[in-house]
Amino acid sequence: MKKKPLILVSNDDGVNALGLKALIEVVTEFGEVIVVAPEKGESGMSHAISIVNPIRKKFVSKEDNLTIYSVNGTPVDCVKLALNQIVDRKPDFLVSGINHGSNASISVIYSGTMGAAIEGCFNGIPSAGFSLLNHDANADFTASKVFTRIIFKEMMQNGLPQGTCLNVNVPDLPLEKITGIEACRMAKGVWKEEYDKRTDPHGREYYWLTGHFNNFEPNAKDTDEAVLAANKVAIVPVSVDITDYEMLKSIKNWNL
Amino acid sequence: MKKKPLILVSNDDGVNALGLKALIEVVTEFGEVIVVAPEKGESGMSHAISIVNPIRKKFVSKEDNLTIYSVNGTPVDCVKLALNQIVDRKPDFLVSGINHGSNASISVIYSGTMGAAIEGCFNGIPSAGFSLLNHDANADFTASKVFTRIIFKEMMQNGLPQGTCLNVNVPDLPLEKITGIEACRMAKGVWKEEYDKRTDPHGREYYWLTGHFNNFEPNAKDTDEAVLAANKVAIVPVSVDITDYEMLKSIKNWNL
Repeated sequence: MKKKPLILVSNDDGVNALGLKALIEVVTEFGEVIVVAPEKGESGMSHAISIVNPIRKKFVSKEDNLTIYSVNGTPVDCVKLALNQIVDRKPDFLVSGINHGSNASISVIYSGTMGAAIEGCFNGIPSAGFSLLNHDANADFTASKVFTRIIFKEMMQNGLPQGTCLNVNVPDLPLEKITGIEACRMAKGVWKEEYDKRTDPHGREYYWLTGHFNNFEPNAKDTDEAVLAANKVAIVPVSVDITDYEMLKSIKNWNL
Repeated sequence: MKKKPLILVSNDDGVNALGLKALIEVVTEFGEVIVVAPEKGESGMSHAISIVNPIRKKFVSKEDNLTIYSVNGTPVDCVKLALNQIVDRKPDFLVSGINHGSNASISVIYSGTMGAAIEGCFNGIPSAGFSLLNHDANADFTASKVFTRIIFKEMMQNGLPQGTCLNVNVPDLPLEKITGIEACRMAKGVWKEEYDKRTDPHGREYYWLTGHFNNFEPNAKDTDEAVLAANKVAIVPVSVDITDYEMLKSIKNWNL
């Protein structure tokens, strides 16, 4: 009998996040699941790894086809430690999330959720990150679970090309208001900072990061931001080869 | 009289790193320089940002056309804080490094040095990261400075397309042994982990990250790894749009 697929799960909101529980509910239907997630929130950790400090893993629980560990490191640390020290065979799939908050447009690059998915992809594992456009710790993942299930099934069926993973974002709407799923490109834009400058009780200044997203192409129809604004789930295929091949042609004219 | 170009400088090895000093020596020749660098080493921080904790900046020094600040945050925090709170006009260029150690192939994605460059690129600033293939804190940056100067001059002259920055890696060789500069693509590969598992004095296990790079295409001639192995400086143009446009065509066949 063929072994059940082994599915590695991580996230960046930490092992206790509601979004992680939602993702586990979806994927335990399809195989043996090992969760290795940060012990606390690691949002905005991108592809960071722990070099200066060692990391520790903690066994959380095991029941039926679900084993959970936490790690005091980044999402990418979780994936690396899982692959090297926890799993006894190469996972067939890696899923990350469901993130509390959007990872559309350039947020994919700041995202710890997508950091984990990209790390899976580096290791030749078909990988996807899932995010809901709601930051709230108590966000409702009902619709997200339905779409995660559909997309994960298609990913199992079709596989993914080597070097490509998926960045899936789900609008913050009840299921019946979401009108479809669309593959698209990431919108061009920037997070414009507005640091909140304060003074501590000892008279020293400090800064809180705040800001807003500035979409450079608000009228484009084929971006993740546009698809989400049209109340659809957005899937962006993400390449881990970030060479700019167009520029590679024109730089040949430089005087080097 | 036209104002001198404003050049923002950062790195991930920290404000006291020798590689940063080398980069400052090169670019102060070309304009007014503001350095905003992490107060301590932030290697492997990728595109991470500080969300949970506030950050602080520290004035370090000012002389002639060079002002230096340190920030207790990541390289990307440094760039964000610089743009929002430190500079009085948009920098004309951003340079990051010179990193102590290679950022070729997929290391570009773990790299805090390249995180800073990519953040500059998001903000429409022509940006480049420079790295020397030597991790040593006392590495010799003589040759790196020569090539950084050549490449920075070309970047000033030609500009860079919106959404593209440069990842420059320099072989660890004396100047006369380096045979040229070549634009190339990033090699496909993976860092294979070999965690070093230890036990602390209290009987608890912990893990140090170690590993080695596995080049998936050792025979390709057009990758950064191949160019460096041929004793040349490698320039990879990096796109901040990481959509996989090939996959975007084939995913249309999925049953979504």
